[in-house]
Amino acid sequence: MTNKKRDTGCPIAYALDIFGDRWSLIIIRDILFRGVRTYGDLLKSDEGIATNILASRLKEFEASGIISKSRDPNNRRQFIYRITPKGAELAPILVEMVQWSAKYDDNTLVGEALLQQIEQDREGFIQKIQQKALE
Amino acid sequence: MTNKKRDTGCPIAYALDIFGDRWSLIIIRDILFRGVRTYGDLLKSDEGIATNILASRLKEFEASGIISKSRDPNNRRQFIYRITPKGAELAPILVEMVQWSAKYDDNTLVGEALLQQIEQDREGFIQKIQQKALE
Repeated sequence: MTNKKRDTGCPIAYALDIFGDRWSLIIIRDILFRGVRTYGDLLKSDEGIATNILASRLKEFEASGIISKSRDPNNRRQFIYRITPKGAELAPILVEMVQWSAKYDDNTLVGEALLQQIEQDREGFIQKIQQKALE
Repeated sequence: MTNKKRDTGCPIAYALDIFGDRWSLIIIRDILFRGVRTYGDLLKSDEGIATNILASRLKEFEASGIISKSRDPNNRRQFIYRITPKGAELAPILVEMVQWSAKYDDNTLVGEALLQQIEQDREGFIQKIQQKALE
């Protein structure tokens, strides 16, 4: 996302300026839903993200305030990436995407149990993810 | 999105393979939320989409089954783009994006009245948009 921001005031444009590309929400998925917190582990995502794309997205996410970067207290040479409250509030968007894809992707890995959990208590499901990611 | 599909079974990857870029959801916003139905009118979106990007996205959306293309019965030389049920079900994702951006974008055009409408009756709000777009 080297393109410049579109200041039209449209909420869709604002959101896409931050995460509108092929990779951003894959990285956010790993940090927010899967508890991944290091560069090395983010690089191992199933989809095979390139290291230069990962590095540039992480820098942009920090600038946008959706993740924070700090030194690992147990290993000062390593950085820890964490979701911020602003980033954690992307969870409902991701959950809607999960439901949409589960319905239309014939090869989806999303199981019935997960879908039922979301349908029965959407708010609770999202809050649990957010609390775990922010703790 | 000339990139090939990622068949990991992950719902986020599936969704991003269809609309994960800077422009796709801007086009879907215009078709689904604003009732725009012609190429010429889609080209006039506030964000200034390039004609080659618009043409390629519309072709991909048709292939993904989220829009349909037909001849305008009133003007056989013109095509009409319409949302399909699969495309209309992207509405909840867009609504979540609207709420997220309204909260975090200082220059948002999203008004309090709209946000209250969404909060008070999310399902009804979404259904109204979908029904109008599909009729």
